[in-house]
Amino acid sequence: MSAPTTINIGLCGLGTVGQGVWKHLSANRAELESRLGVKLNLARAAVRDLRKARAVKIPASKLTRDPLAVATDPQIHIVCELMGGTALARKITLAALRRGKIVVSANKALICQHGAEIFAAAQQHGGHFFFEASVAGGIPIIKALREGLVANRFPRIYGILNGTCNYILTQMEDRDAPYAAVLADAKRLGYAEADESLDVDGWDTAHKASVLAWLAHGVWVKPAEMIVEGISRITPADFKNAVTLGYGIKLLAVITRDFKRNELCVRIHPTLLPEGNVIANVSGVFNAISVTGDVVGTTLYSGRGAGQDATASAVISDIADGVALLRFGKGAHLNSEVTTAACKDCRLAPAESIRSRYYLRLTVKDQPGVLARVASVMAKHHVSIASVIQNPAERAGAASLVLTTHESNERAMGATLRQLAALSSTLDEPVLLRIGDFND
Amino acid sequence: MSAPTTINIGLCGLGTVGQGVWKHLSANRAELESRLGVKLNLARAAVRDLRKARAVKIPASKLTRDPLAVATDPQIHIVCELMGGTALARKITLAALRRGKIVVSANKALICQHGAEIFAAAQQHGGHFFFEASVAGGIPIIKALREGLVANRFPRIYGILNGTCNYILTQMEDRDAPYAAVLADAKRLGYAEADESLDVDGWDTAHKASVLAWLAHGVWVKPAEMIVEGISRITPADFKNAVTLGYGIKLLAVITRDFKRNELCVRIHPTLLPEGNVIANVSGVFNAISVTGDVVGTTLYSGRGAGQDATASAVISDIADGVALLRFGKGAHLNSEVTTAACKDCRLAPAESIRSRYYLRLTVKDQPGVLARVASVMAKHHVSIASVIQNPAERAGAASLVLTTHESNERAMGATLRQLAALSSTLDEPVLLRIGDFND
Repeated sequence: MSAPTTINIGLCGLGTVGQGVWKHLSANRAELESRLGVKLNLARAAVRDLRKARAVKIPASKLTRDPLAVATDPQIHIVCELMGGTALARKITLAALRRGKIVVSANKALICQHGAEIFAAAQQHGGHFFFEASVAGGIPIIKALREGLVANRFPRIYGILNGTCNYILTQMEDRDAPYAAVLADAKRLGYAEADESLDVDGWDTAHKASVLAWLAHGVWVKPAEMIVEGISRITPADFKNAVTLGYGIKLLAVITRDFKRNELCVRIHPTLLPEGNVIANVSGVFNAISVTGDVVGTTLYSGRGAGQDATASAVISDIADGVALLRFGKGAHLNSEVTTAACKDCRLAPAESIRSRYYLRLTVKDQPGVLARVASVMAKHHVSIASVIQNPAERAGAASLVLTTHESNERAMGATLRQLAALSSTLDEPVLLRIGDFND
Repeated sequence: MSAPTTINIGLCGLGTVGQGVWKHLSANRAELESRLGVKLNLARAAVRDLRKARAVKIPASKLTRDPLAVATDPQIHIVCELMGGTALARKITLAALRRGKIVVSANKALICQHGAEIFAAAQQHGGHFFFEASVAGGIPIIKALREGLVANRFPRIYGILNGTCNYILTQMEDRDAPYAAVLADAKRLGYAEADESLDVDGWDTAHKASVLAWLAHGVWVKPAEMIVEGISRITPADFKNAVTLGYGIKLLAVITRDFKRNELCVRIHPTLLPEGNVIANVSGVFNAISVTGDVVGTTLYSGRGAGQDATASAVISDIADGVALLRFGKGAHLNSEVTTAACKDCRLAPAESIRSRYYLRLTVKDQPGVLARVASVMAKHHVSIASVIQNPAERAGAASLVLTTHESNERAMGATLRQLAALSSTLDEPVLLRIGDFND
């Protein structure tokens, strides 16, 4: 089969990202065609509503309501699945891969949930699945991990993977404003979805961490197997306490691998980062990822994580890789299956080997003896206190007790937390944040 | 021709980088072989001295004193040119490419000087030339520009490309120490070469900027066509003045393209960067690059720029790309020649269209009327003064006059500088730094 000279591209989904891809492919078409050595034809797009007004002008003849028709169209070489959701997206993706097509996807939930099936289908049927846009859209981190840093094993990868959360945290800190007010603003400005839980509870970050962990370690870790904690219980007081202690607060995905024990840990939680850490200073909707390789040391990447343009840039880079593959053969991409081979027997780290320092905020009755009781609970679980800050709490008769610990582990802290929550002097569910003493 | 199952690798040069490649390829061999699906055989290495003691143990039977024998050995698939220098390196590289081999190089001077010839030879003879290690070793910036950000045109790329200079500048600032003392320390510690001029005068940065400019814009710009200024005239007082003004000082490569005028500008000079800018805070031997794409916005990359391990990581990633190419066909890499096609008719920006704000330090006679004379020279050339700081200078009877300007251009500033230098009240060659008002 000779390489096609015109590449037909089909889009399934024409929302924000789909329109961005159409817009930029149209605007930079001449330059791209010259770089890639083929004609690029935006052949068809599947939409939910044919009549909806859209910012990009697309001939009615190219629109269809049937994404499966796009995915299975024998004329179409590259299918961009940009619908979101997992059930229909899975069907579309598998249908295209089974026909040996190239699929480009921005769908982290799909990959997290059905990645194993998708990559197996691609391999079995000679299809190819590209997903640079699924994690940190503006940052070519998938390519960096899989190709640029292929010489490395990765003891630690961590970073900010959700722009909505980072926007909210940045606003809370800068404006000294409570979570609920900032969230409401973010919704008004379009930075947060009507149902914010996927973002603020950490699930979107978990999906992306799952993709990165698989790339780096060849193991599928599902969100249910991770520590996943969101940002909704953080208060402006936490930022003030963090500053006093020399830290900022970021929602991080942290992926660590202990090569001696062959243990992998993937966790999503708000984290105190030293104020000098570059990622502690990444503001607003930006994403940033720190990658430590055993050969290269620590490298850092930052850019816009989502939004029409950053995501379109990633989708188009995958289309370009797809074009190279159609023109020249499958060397365009290291095979996905081989990435996973070296990682067998790796197990998820048990709670006691997930170690860190902790920040604990308790709202307690403002009466003598409370600190002594708290300290004795912690001592019982061998959790050693590093510092204590006591402040008046907002509610009358209550005090805020902020403790940081020396290094402990998730099992000990979990047991400590349950017992502290049960004390009669504890007025509210305790707030636990991890301290990430990462200096790079 | 079927794909080989064992890839034979030859090293030309077994200094710091060559030994690093050997060490890490040996240490991570099983994992790499599993990921790449082939056996990797370190077949031969060319050295200058067969008897020299080396940290890595290599059988004497694999060593030769003849790099050309390695480059032309029919058994060897991938030749790593890690010798440095340009004359012999060019010969070796062309010999291997003309035999259709894959060449991996860390040699920015070679690419800058002979890139056009090398890529033409590769194309003509079916060879391939990979060079991720040539710029910012630890950062996969070549792959990011050429593949990950392929959807973009690049109005601005700037960053720290020389770790030695960044180490010296960081030390000067942190220790309030003069250039000469810090340079002497850096030599003792092995962070600077015995002949430091390639680094501190900006030529190494210029070679790397040439490579990046070609990747981003398809034009070969030689150092002689750039503004190239080094760091040797910066004093601790300049850091203090910069801090007063809200800036840090970094040696930057700045590559800007004006798409409307179709003008390209590549310049290397110490630059005042706003203190909040991430790159202003990149310390020590680290490199960092900010890439602004018209689609993706600004993305940032940082990591170790040189050294045995970071460079070896980049060389090995190129070897991996080479292996994919040998196994699957040349889709492993977007063709170099097509990158350049879209950029014809682009011209180098003339001096009057290279605009920035400037920082100017004059050592002048400490007497009345000097500032008036300086100001009138600047006014004559339509250079508008933004701020003035007057300090006693180190030498008796002299004052230090620090001026910042509003936006001007290189022609006007050049003329201003020449006239200021000629004033009888000016005691020393003026020091001119550019102000880079880059907020990301």
